[in-house]
Amino acid sequence: MSMDPIETNPESYKVVFENDQVRVLEYLDQPGHLTKPHQHPDSVMYTLSSFSRRLHANNTTRDVEIASGTTSWLSAQIHAGENIGSTDTHVIFVELKNASSLTTDIGPQI
Amino acid sequence: MSMDPIETNPESYKVVFENDQVRVLEYLDQPGHLTKPHQHPDSVMYTLSSFSRRLHANNTTRDVEIASGTTSWLSAQIHAGENIGSTDTHVIFVELKNASSLTTDIGPQI
Repeated sequence: MSMDPIETNPESYKVVFENDQVRVLEYLDQPGHLTKPHQHPDSVMYTLSSFSRRLHANNTTRDVEIASGTTSWLSAQIHAGENIGSTDTHVIFVELKNASSLTTDIGPQI
Repeated sequence: MSMDPIETNPESYKVVFENDQVRVLEYLDQPGHLTKPHQHPDSVMYTLSSFSRRLHANNTTRDVEIASGTTSWLSAQIHAGENIGSTDTHVIFVELKNASSLTTDIGPQI
């Protein structure tokens, strides 16, 4: 079963750019949306909306609240994400193709 | 003389994130602004505004017009950029630290 988010949740993820070094994804959902479990490589995340999310991984959860216009690092990880706020989640992910690590930790974000 | 844009044009470029794999810059200027010549490594560019710019490199110029919300690739290059439109230029650059090439071509953007 693919853990690529564009396959697990094509309604929310779309590829907006790709070459041999990066793949860039745009993510958009609405309040109440829950993704299937999926895998991110090491990525830069840039938020285009403010949102509240619950991250599910390793049989635990962590809630995060992030402001629009925030740049952060998403270490390689497997998780599911749930929009628990009242706003859309709108995010750009720049995935690094040279990423090497894969963890199941809940990272800082989406 | 440094060609790092945060040194050539600190009024417009700021570092919003950095680790061993990437550096992320936010760029903001106003109509009429002209940068000094500076160098970009291979980077992903995401536009937060729509703008018109004139790129100066290799004793030539090229004009570009880019819509807000556009993701594109900026190959390693040296150039100066001039805001020739009526809107601010507001852009996020994700610089890749594993970038190898350096050209003086005028790339597709800023």
